[in-house]
Parts: sequence; structure tokens; C-alpha cells
Amino acid sequence: MREVFVAGAFVTPFGKFMDTSLRELARQATDGALADAGAGPEEVGAVFFGNTAAGALNEQHAIRGQVALQDTGLLGAPITSVENACASGSTAFNLAHAAVAAGTAEIALAVGAEKLTHADKAKTFAVFSSGWDVERFGSENGGTHSAFMDVYAGIARRFMERTGATAEDFAEISVKSHRNGALNPNAQYRDPLTVEQVLESRTVSDPLTLLMCSPIGDGAAALVLASEEALERLGTADPVKVLAAILRSGTKLEPDDEVTAPALAARDAYDRAGIGPEDVDVVEMHDAAAPAELIVYEELGLAEPGGSVELLRSGATSLGGRVPVNPSGGLLSRGHPVGATGCAQLVELTDQLRGRCGGRQVEGAKVALAENGGGWIGGDVAAVTITILGR
Amino acid sequence: MREVFVAGAFVTPFGKFMDTSLRELARQATDGALADAGAGPEEVGAVFFGNTAAGALNEQHAIRGQVALQDTGLLGAPITSVENACASGSTAFNLAHAAVAAGTAEIALAVGAEKLTHADKAKTFAVFSSGWDVERFGSENGGTHSAFMDVYAGIARRFMERTGATAEDFAEISVKSHRNGALNPNAQYRDPLTVEQVLESRTVSDPLTLLMCSPIGDGAAALVLASEEALERLGTADPVKVLAAILRSGTKLEPDDEVTAPALAARDAYDRAGIGPEDVDVVEMHDAAAPAELIVYEELGLAEPGGSVELLRSGATSLGGRVPVNPSGGLLSRGHPVGATGCAQLVELTDQLRGRCGGRQVEGAKVALAENGGGWIGGDVAAVTITILGR
Repeated sequence: MREVFVAGAFVTPFGKFMDTSLRELARQATDGALADAGAGPEEVGAVFFGNTAAGALNEQHAIRGQVALQDTGLLGAPITSVENACASGSTAFNLAHAAVAAGTAEIALAVGAEKLTHADKAKTFAVFSSGWDVERFGSENGGTHSAFMDVYAGIARRFMERTGATAEDFAEISVKSHRNGALNPNAQYRDPLTVEQVLESRTVSDPLTLLMCSPIGDGAAALVLASEEALERLGTADPVKVLAAILRSGTKLEPDDEVTAPALAARDAYDRAGIGPEDVDVVEMHDAAAPAELIVYEELGLAEPGGSVELLRSGATSLGGRVPVNPSGGLLSRGHPVGATGCAQLVELTDQLRGRCGGRQVEGAKVALAENGGGWIGGDVAAVTITILGR
Repeated sequence: MREVFVAGAFVTPFGKFMDTSLRELARQATDGALADAGAGPEEVGAVFFGNTAAGALNEQHAIRGQVALQDTGLLGAPITSVENACASGSTAFNLAHAAVAAGTAEIALAVGAEKLTHADKAKTFAVFSSGWDVERFGSENGGTHSAFMDVYAGIARRFMERTGATAEDFAEISVKSHRNGALNPNAQYRDPLTVEQVLESRTVSDPLTLLMCSPIGDGAAALVLASEEALERLGTADPVKVLAAILRSGTKLEPDDEVTAPALAARDAYDRAGIGPEDVDVVEMHDAAAPAELIVYEELGLAEPGGSVELLRSGATSLGGRVPVNPSGGLLSRGHPVGATGCAQLVELTDQLRGRCGGRQVEGAKVALAENGGGWIGGDVAAVTITILGR
């Protein structure tokens, strides 16, 4: 397999932009990433467009990638819309990586773009709630929140029983994420929070409070992937190498099976990259709800089973610690426009490795890992990617 | 790029199966293809699931692949839902091919599955009508037919002006397709038609009559792709080689630009395969409406510009002719469950090359070509694949 590099990366601000179209968000992200790479749209050999909501919210059930990208000069290249719930963006990255690795393209573009704000909030919730088997579980739960947060709440309760973690620990995750997000000009929420504020916010699904849950928002992110030859042609001064790009679907058929898809994917990714968790300098992970971060510490091998709270309290995962997690603010503070999130994580890590992150820069970062999960099936994450980037 | 082979192929019957779920259709196709390849689901390293309607019709906007395939034993492998309107199935094939070529999988599965029949027909039409920019053109036209057929009708009228083709010529295409479909036990319509019947059926959008338009239906198809090593391990006696797998999006920005995406994709595919149109023994093409077949004759180089009607009348594209087109019955007679069509074409061609097509067998076929188009953007097909298979 050929080596693949990130030659350009760009993320739009995330937030509630009622009057900005998906097309405009996608255009900003692709224009930005191509400019960053010094590449023209006519040089792109494959485009993967990650999006989940355009069917539900805009009735654009088909060719959403072509429609969203029609102003970008990219028509002509093969454009494929890909979907894996909240992991749609990193799935697009995974396939762009494969296209360059396979030699079907010298330059490939991964785009994640999502417009979630809608005059009819129930439509937005229906998108989140279709991250599981709709026929079996239904698509909505009455409209006070996404039914999908009940899945996260159940996982959180099992984690509390197993490890002794408390709601305060979950609140600390939100506090850390918002502290980081305050340093990220593209974050949706940039005000620091206190543990008390998190705990006192409205209960969404016990033990989750509103400020432990990622917000609804809009945004887009894109990355240009390139072969070594293309990199030389583009004259990229500052490339980042893809050390591993792993995608898995859920394997657990019962909730109490021990090994999860993220843990298996992480093991595969470390093998592929020839490194271990101790070699990772900075991580972006999928904290759609705050407890997820503690669970993923274990799945990535950053903490032993039961050791996640201790890792958090040690400060190791805070900025300035051994392995900062979610320096961007994560889903909780940077925001979570579903299909955009996976690409946004990888833009953040690319910029961390290039030393472009200003006040939230992880000094000297050489190896970066992203974990992005989506959907729920048979007691496990329906899709998870682990991507490792390096200098 | 590594060589890639089709090791197994299966298509379900196509038709209106109101009581059969997408999940059941997908299971039948994947079980069938894996059995044909002699492979177990645990051997599959990547799955691409082509579907367009599950969001609109079942509210399964997210992880439709995992949900549809949850009974197949395939969870664990990376499953990605891919969408390119009526070319979704062949897009899945294209990406499965890339995964094996890149070495990210030794065995990959392409699935196209679609359930279009629904108690509320307007929902089904909305799926077809989202094959263009919905924001600009709207999603429906009143419910008597898919608004998308107006696009085909416009194309047909321009073709008539340019070449002198008549409605009778279009009717002859339908007659030929239904003659072939009558020999295909999986076809949705298996009764031969006369030119008079086609012309006298209800006008959908002038010059298109109902029997010149592909029907609404349900079905699924799947193909197992494998590397040479995997093929040996499986002991496949009867493999088919992928000579080219090309995907493009529309490039024409105005309807009167001369070169279309299908023509460009065909040129790329012939280059990749090292052959020309004269080497092709059998073709499946995207006759969503009958005039398309005549247009695609030109785009594939089977006829000179303006020579398509003559080619049809010569019998060259009928069974027994030089290069039979749509021996399966094509979209018009075999049926057109949107996301399934691209895979169904490739199952037909695989079986043609393996000599398994009974009464519609093209004797001695060594090289087969499929053209599958989807959606409409800026005056061109939004996505088109050209796939060439060979023995």
C-alpha cells in the first residue's frame, strides 16, 4: 500500500447558522482545504462526501455530494456520498485514504458537511435517532431530546457501576472540553464552565445533563489527501503522514460482551502504525456525551480498565498533560455537526502536528490519534474509525 | 494496483414485494453471493452498501447498511453506506474494487439493495425526484410520475432533433428489453411487448410512454470481490476479472456541451482495460427510459454519432447479434430498484461470462461492459460508472 499524506486541511466555524446552506458550508471547507494544499479542484481524482441529514432535512436523498459541491469546480471527479452516522466524516477520510493508497487517485478530497439547524427541531432529532435500527426502536421519543442520548445514558450507567465513576467525573470532562474550546476560535461554545454549572443544567437522560451532551450545530471540514508524488508536485512544505486509517462496524451482539469495536479498531490501528498508546501525543475523540471520553480512554489503552477517572484527575489528558485529549474542545464544546465531526477532528490533529493551534497547541506533538464513532447496533458502535497521523 | 476478481455474485428476483423488508432482500443477496464465492461472512474485510431510499421511506437516515445487514454475520467488517442515486450499486462495487486493489481488504462485498414500494407512493416518487438539486428544482411535480422522467424526456427530444430518431425507435428498445427479460427468471416483467403496446401506453412525459420507462420495484444484488490470493484460498473455479472500474461525476456545465460524463468514463475504462468498443461482447446499460439506450450506444462508442438507430435496427444489440445489450431485460424489464440496479447489471455480466444465463446466454462472451448512471446535475449525469469485466 502506498504512503498517503494530508496536504491540506480546513474547518469552518461550527455553530447554529440558520441562514447558511449546506452548499455554502461545503464550499467554504473544500475551498479552504484546497487552498491550504495549493491544489486546484481539477487536480482532485476522488471526492468522498460525508453527510447524514440532507435527506431528512432538505429532501436531498440522492446525490447530496454533487449538489453540495456544485459550486466548487469539483464536478468531473468521482463524487460519492458516504454515510456512517456520526462517523460519516472520518469514513469519507478513510475512503479518500484508500483511493490514494490504491492508486485510483493521486489527490483525493474528504469532506464532512452537515446542516442540522432546521425550523422544525423534530426533523433534526429524527436524524440523531436514526443512528439505530429505526424499525425496531422507533425514530423519536417525544421530542424533548434525541432518543439516541438514552443509549449514551445506559452506557454511562453501566460504566458507573463497573468503575465507580460519578456524575462529577462526567462534569469534569465537560469542564475540560469547554476550557479547551475557549481557545478554539472555530468552536461552537467558547465560554468556560464550572462543574456546578454542568451538574445543575437540565437532566436530558439520567445521569446525563444538557451540558454533558454535544450540541446541535452546523459546519463543514475537509482534508486533501495526496500521494508522495502529488505532494512533491504541489510543493507541500508541511505534510502530515497517515500512519493508520481503520474502520470497523460493531461486533458485540450483546451489551455485556467484553471487547468493543473501538478497542478492536484501536488495536488494528496501533499494529498498522507500529506504535502503542504510549507513543500518542494528542487525541481527538468522540465525546458525543461526556462519559464517552472516559470509556474511550480504556478502549484506546490510554488507561487500564477502571483507570480512566484517575487518568482524568491526574491532568494527563488536559492541555499541558502527557496526552491532551480533545484540545479542539471536542464534540461538547467545538460542536457536533454529525457528518462534519470526523473531518473536523482530523483537521485539528493535522494543525496540531503542523504547530498551528495557537493557545491550544500541544507542544512538540509528533503522533496524533482520532477516534470517531457513529450509530449503535447490537450493543456496540455501528461504525468507528481510528486514524493515526504523524510527522 | 493489484488485480481484482469477482468471486461470487447473486441477485434476488426484482418486483413489487410490499411485505418483504429491505433487511430480508439484503440478506438474500449477501447470503447468495457469499455462498456462490464459497466465503464466510467473517472473511469479508470491507462492505459497501448502495441504497438511496431507506431514509425517505423507512426514516433510516443513518447506518442503513449495518441495519440492513445485521442478520448476515457481516457486522465487524467495516460497513459503509454509499449513495449515488441510480448508480449507488455500482458505486459500491467501485469502492469494493478499490478496497481490494489497495490491499485494505482481501475480500470485499458490494451490496445494492432497495425497497421502493411503499403504501405512500408520493414518498417513492420523492426519492426519484431527489436525483437533482432539490432546493433549485423542487422534489415533486404533483404525483402522477417522477419529476425526474421530465429530465429524460428533455434529453430524448434533443436526441430526436439531432439524429432523427422517432418514438417508434424508442419503442423498439422496450420491445427488445422485454424480449430479453422474458428469458430472465429474476426479471420484474417477463411478458413480451409489441411496438404498438409501447406506443399506446399512457404518456408519462412526451415522448416517453409508460412502457418506455423503468418500473418501480424492490430487489437486491451483491458481488464478492477478491484478490488473487483470496481467490486461491477460496478455491474459486470460475472467477471473472475486473478489467476497469471507473466512476465519474457530471462535467458538463451546460446541456449543449458536447462531451458527457458517460463518454469520458467509457474512454477512461477502455484505456484502463486496454481494449476498444469493438472488443466488447455483451453490455448492460442504464435504460431508465428507453431513449437512454440509443444515447449510450454513442457514448460507449458502439455507434458513431447519429448511428444508434441503425445499430439497433441491424440487430447487432439483440441477443444473437454482435454485441447484445441488456440481455437481462435491463431496467425496463428486469426492473430498477434504484440502489440495486448497478450490482444487478454486474451480476448479470458475471453470469454471462461464466456461461450461466440459460436462454439469454451470449455465447462465448469474454468481455463485458456495464454502464450505470445516477442523478442529474448541471446538464449531465451526476454519477456514472463504467465497469469492464473479462475472462
